Amino acid sequence: MSIAYLNGVFLPLEDARVSPLDRGFLFADGIYEVAAVIDGRLVDNASHLARLERSTAAIGITLPLSPDDIQAVQKELVVRNALSEGLVYLQVTRGADVSRDFIAPASLSPTLFLFVQDRPFLDLPAVRTGIAVATMPDLRWKRRDIKSVGLLAQAMAKQAARDAGAQEAWMVEDGFVTEGASSTAFIVIDEGIITRPYSEAVLAGCTASALTALAEESGLRIVRRPFTVAEALDAKEAFITSASTLCQSVVRIDGRNIGDGTPGPIATRLRTLYIDFARSTAV
Amino acid sequence: MSIAYLNGVFLPLEDARVSPLDRGFLFADGIYEVAAVIDGRLVDNASHLARLERSTAAIGITLPLSPDDIQAVQKELVVRNALSEGLVYLQVTRGADVSRDFIAPASLSPTLFLFVQDRPFLDLPAVRTGIAVATMPDLRWKRRDIKSVGLLAQAMAKQAARDAGAQEAWMVEDGFVTEGASSTAFIVIDEGIITRPYSEAVLAGCTASALTALAEESGLRIVRRPFTVAEALDAKEAFITSASTLCQSVVRIDGRNIGDGTPGPIATRLRTLYIDFARSTAV
Repeated sequence: MSIAYLNGVFLPLEDARVSPLDRGFLFADGIYEVAAVIDGRLVDNASHLARLERSTAAIGITLPLSPDDIQAVQKELVVRNALSEGLVYLQVTRGADVSRDFIAPASLSPTLFLFVQDRPFLDLPAVRTGIAVATMPDLRWKRRDIKSVGLLAQAMAKQAARDAGAQEAWMVEDGFVTEGASSTAFIVIDEGIITRPYSEAVLAGCTASALTALAEESGLRIVRRPFTVAEALDAKEAFITSASTLCQSVVRIDGRNIGDGTPGPIATRLRTLYIDFARSTAV
Repeated sequence: MSIAYLNGVFLPLEDARVSPLDRGFLFADGIYEVAAVIDGRLVDNASHLARLERSTAAIGITLPLSPDDIQAVQKELVVRNALSEGLVYLQVTRGADVSRDFIAPASLSPTLFLFVQDRPFLDLPAVRTGIAVATMPDLRWKRRDIKSVGLLAQAMAKQAARDAGAQEAWMVEDGFVTEGASSTAFIVIDEGIITRPYSEAVLAGCTASALTALAEESGLRIVRRPFTVAEALDAKEAFITSASTLCQSVVRIDGRNIGDGTPGPIATRLRTLYIDFARSTAV
């Protein structure tokens, strides 16, 4: 039985309940984070907690616990669930009102919900085979730097990608790839490893930030600029990063092979670098 | 004590609970509607239920009840709460999973939640004074024709408008007003009554549709085209429509008076026409 955390209480996940007047339910007025767990420890968690603070500050939600106390809850969940490899999901909303109004009363107590997913991800078949992505129009709102729970556009894109035989959607706006539906997008071309610079158009990826730093330390050239779908289709390699996929090769885009259709050397090397970093810094 | 409806059960609103694994909470994967109640009867409800069917179909949620059965629940809530004047809120989500994945299992049972707001709105002071609106960048996603619960951008715009001393936000994109944060926007100029045509950029307003039909029947000219903020500032009149404001004069935009700063004759006449229509057709 999985143990979750809700507003100060550890309880079986299936017993967790919130009011349907919670603004997370009525208005998507909430923020989330997902941290990976490897060897029973949290990967790059300070980066996730810093982004949580940025996102909640951007929409004026006060975190009910300090980052240190949130990390203590995350760790407690890892222990209580004997989680060795998986994810810790965290969501904070502005809280439940007594009725429904777009304007939130200042008196609300934020809702804090965490649970774990026991989902080994280091040794998936996709690591060896690579994944396919399908490009989709980017229908999302304009503040994608805020990691809000308003994820319907992403869910729709993921479902459409699945229907097209792909495992991830790459969102396209004005001809350029913004990012994956739940990942950061990279391509490898002669110019270097290309990824979109951070702005309100994309989420600043925790895994992406750590990985690009590792890449640069190891002498690889990262070029932060938007890239087109055509550039991606002609790339030598493509890959995504996220907390749950780490660094995952993309071997097909819209049904067309990238390179020889197998995971390329740069993505493979970066994945190893990232896992070494993750293991050596996890808390 | 207010009585709500949740998944087949009538219960006190404060006792209603949903799982935090509900996709409405995790992904804003849900649709809502708000119907007005006047004289204890539902206003233009067939139009709201038709839009509910369109929105849920657009994102692939199957309604757990037929429109007739939903209307029966709405009416039962009106009776149980002895509601004379107010709103019936309705939300349907894709339901609660046992974990969290962007791709929803096909097996989920949708969540259906309704509650009432006992909130007289026919005789508010704003009807006599008019309201102020503040223009705000339209940060929303691109499928605004789908009435999803992903309302954070709207809530942020409403809060910013409130902070600017206004009661509604008019969302602006590429220099044109799309619509209000929770209303349809109209201006009156020599050319006629201008309002944006329906597309994916705006929600097809139930009240707006009924009101424009009434206006045309009474010989007024409706021109469906986008208008700029500059046009709005120079308009003779401005007004909004929504289920909860019906037809409400706007007398100030970004701090500048519209006309003489009092409700204009056309908006006032249309409000009367709409209320007559609402009363005579309510069910």
